[in-house]
Amino acid sequence: MNAGADTCKPPHVVILGGGFGGMAAARRLAGAAVQVTLVDRRNHHLFQPLLYQVATASLAAPSIAAPLRQILRRQRNLTVLLNEVVGIDLTARRVQCTHGALDYDYLVVATGATHAYFGHDEWERFAPGLKTLDDAFLIRRRVLLAFENAERESDPARRQAWLSFVVVGGGSTGVELAGTLIELARHTLSREFRRSDPRHATVRLIEAGPRLLPAFDPALSDKARRQLERLGVEVHTGVAVTGIDANGVKLGERRLSARTVLWAAGVAASPVGGLLGTALDPAGRVQVLDDLSLPGHPESFVVGDLAGIAQADGKPVPGVAPAAKQMGRHVGTTIRARLRGSDERQPFRYRDDGSLATIGRMAAVAQFGRLKLSGFPAWVVWLLAHIYFLIGFRNRLVVMLDWAWAYCTHQRHARIVSGDDLPDDDAASR
Amino acid sequence: MNAGADTCKPPHVVILGGGFGGMAAARRLAGAAVQVTLVDRRNHHLFQPLLYQVATASLAAPSIAAPLRQILRRQRNLTVLLNEVVGIDLTARRVQCTHGALDYDYLVVATGATHAYFGHDEWERFAPGLKTLDDAFLIRRRVLLAFENAERESDPARRQAWLSFVVVGGGSTGVELAGTLIELARHTLSREFRRSDPRHATVRLIEAGPRLLPAFDPALSDKARRQLERLGVEVHTGVAVTGIDANGVKLGERRLSARTVLWAAGVAASPVGGLLGTALDPAGRVQVLDDLSLPGHPESFVVGDLAGIAQADGKPVPGVAPAAKQMGRHVGTTIRARLRGSDERQPFRYRDDGSLATIGRMAAVAQFGRLKLSGFPAWVVWLLAHIYFLIGFRNRLVVMLDWAWAYCTHQRHARIVSGDDLPDDDAASR
Repeated sequence: MNAGADTCKPPHVVILGGGFGGMAAARRLAGAAVQVTLVDRRNHHLFQPLLYQVATASLAAPSIAAPLRQILRRQRNLTVLLNEVVGIDLTARRVQCTHGALDYDYLVVATGATHAYFGHDEWERFAPGLKTLDDAFLIRRRVLLAFENAERESDPARRQAWLSFVVVGGGSTGVELAGTLIELARHTLSREFRRSDPRHATVRLIEAGPRLLPAFDPALSDKARRQLERLGVEVHTGVAVTGIDANGVKLGERRLSARTVLWAAGVAASPVGGLLGTALDPAGRVQVLDDLSLPGHPESFVVGDLAGIAQADGKPVPGVAPAAKQMGRHVGTTIRARLRGSDERQPFRYRDDGSLATIGRMAAVAQFGRLKLSGFPAWVVWLLAHIYFLIGFRNRLVVMLDWAWAYCTHQRHARIVSGDDLPDDDAASR
Repeated sequence: MNAGADTCKPPHVVILGGGFGGMAAARRLAGAAVQVTLVDRRNHHLFQPLLYQVATASLAAPSIAAPLRQILRRQRNLTVLLNEVVGIDLTARRVQCTHGALDYDYLVVATGATHAYFGHDEWERFAPGLKTLDDAFLIRRRVLLAFENAERESDPARRQAWLSFVVVGGGSTGVELAGTLIELARHTLSREFRRSDPRHATVRLIEAGPRLLPAFDPALSDKARRQLERLGVEVHTGVAVTGIDANGVKLGERRLSARTVLWAAGVAASPVGGLLGTALDPAGRVQVLDDLSLPGHPESFVVGDLAGIAQADGKPVPGVAPAAKQMGRHVGTTIRARLRGSDERQPFRYRDDGSLATIGRMAAVAQFGRLKLSGFPAWVVWLLAHIYFLIGFRNRLVVMLDWAWAYCTHQRHARIVSGDDLPDDDAASR
């Protein structure tokens, strides 16, 4: 596992993380005179913008996840290694993994973000977040079992508690989850239960800030809110969650009763950032120079959600897939320039290609510079963009088919509860 | 949860298990003047004949599993209940579940079979069997991680151990697993690894009996063996496994080194059979009368793999999907006749519609009465039959697409390793 020892060998680029940032860096280095090792804990690249559709039983996991090896199999200068990073020595230029170590000439750290509970880690068991496929399976399981529990429950108050859902966080993920949940209850499941009625389900969306989708124009935030309310979601803005337990959430003095709470409120930078030993910003992101390199280590870079870097206007670059891709490509280009002997440092500039969030069937908001769309036209743009950016022709085909199917029938085909455990009324054992 | 107490209520039929047998009984009762409750531990009906394709990353789970509620949503006299049976009182006509109890007028027990280790339950952790979706995920995970471990391993002997696979049991499942594994190694993964070469993988199929596919004509067993060998599988018949551990299997004095062992050798009847308190045969199946009812309890029936019943020639009815379906329908018909006041007991007769087993790409064996097919024609019959019997039009479409895709590209799209744990060299923690 030792590279760079032999002087004849090409420089070794180690990329940590196979998300949008790491993948873009790897691809940008295709054909370059380097040896690339892409390290990830998981064997697949995940199309995170559609993860909420796995969590709400609309898509099967393989439709939005593809093996890193398969995606990159034609890139002959690249090796994929399933491994976990446990230490980084920037001076010795060495990454320590659970299984072995890697010496590098260039390092790209792209390990992303995870969900965060603002110091309330005890909320996690009651309110799972959504970052990985396993998170999506857990949420799918809890949501589907909530309806099953309601069907078995004879006490009306307890039944209604099982039919009560709270989504914490009004960013895109929260909006998408809330919109899909209400559609699941009112349309998909409506005719399949005999004792309980899923149409009586309530979905509440809680946002601490003054409006939904803070990354969008305020007019679109309003539109999103109205579209959600039309679907049946109860939207609460300007209220902070102060407690979460098995029976619901606390909002200061108020209490919302709900057996199922989903967390879409906060992200924290990946703990791998802390292994670098360099300065982190308050959100745990690694402070990088304007070319995304680490201060004093021009051969080491951080890209994606883990990189703490500001735009020209002083606002941080948002933690979205296009930003991560742009950063990955930028670093790939920088490394290629270095190989040619250039020491010039090109600063990274984030190009905002627009924002999209879907709300439900035929409802979405979109913003491209000064162009703002909502409702059906935004939804069509959202559909096309997400199909276009999915990795793999086969996945595009299957996702299109699944969406067309769901559109025509209101059915969601991935309503599988796996795991041998039966649902339990005791949330502690969920 | 109490039915039948009110005299105006229609008779209550409780069906335990939503597999092929229970589902067929439920459907046969559509429109009848009964109230049907279908109880299952899982929320989905599983198309088990294709489960090995989920285990070998060819199909996504939702393609072969559909929610029971969704399949049966139009049957207005039927309720689906997610629950687990813990006791059956045949005299009181009451089923005790984890959550509540159900009184019945008619009972249909259709809980099927699980895999069995012939008194060696300690083998299970080293050699998982294949009955549920979770089993399939576990096998998929182990198989995919074996190739990843080989890639990380620098010692040639240990690398080869990770590339060595043993399948125990030469029935359809064993033959299908072995054939798919060798194709996975030789074709799907062949170009994606840099340090190890998946084409060096070995797949050995071990059968204790004298030939593969004992349910088929001996000529087809021979053909299957030759087709498997042509694909590269090493077939051992007439040798019994005497031990399994983390490093391989023991065959008497011999030892086959392999880090991945899969179990397809034996099934045992579901433990729910034991709750009836009636006589079981040596395989744990419930001994039933020729109309599938329990001796002394004409209102209680057992169908599917759990029913111990012989054909006219004295051989047991095989534990296959068509037999379970036929039994389910037979019992449904019997209950309908009773509702009309008939006490006639129609004996169940198994109609052998033929047998099919696939071996790999364009290779299969098929037997319909005196007609025997092998190779490409059998494979086409196998394809058409499996697509035809899949539940749901959408699934048929997606599975056809997936198979066409795999056929043209050799790719398998469900190569996802989920779960946060990294692979570990220590089999005890696998």
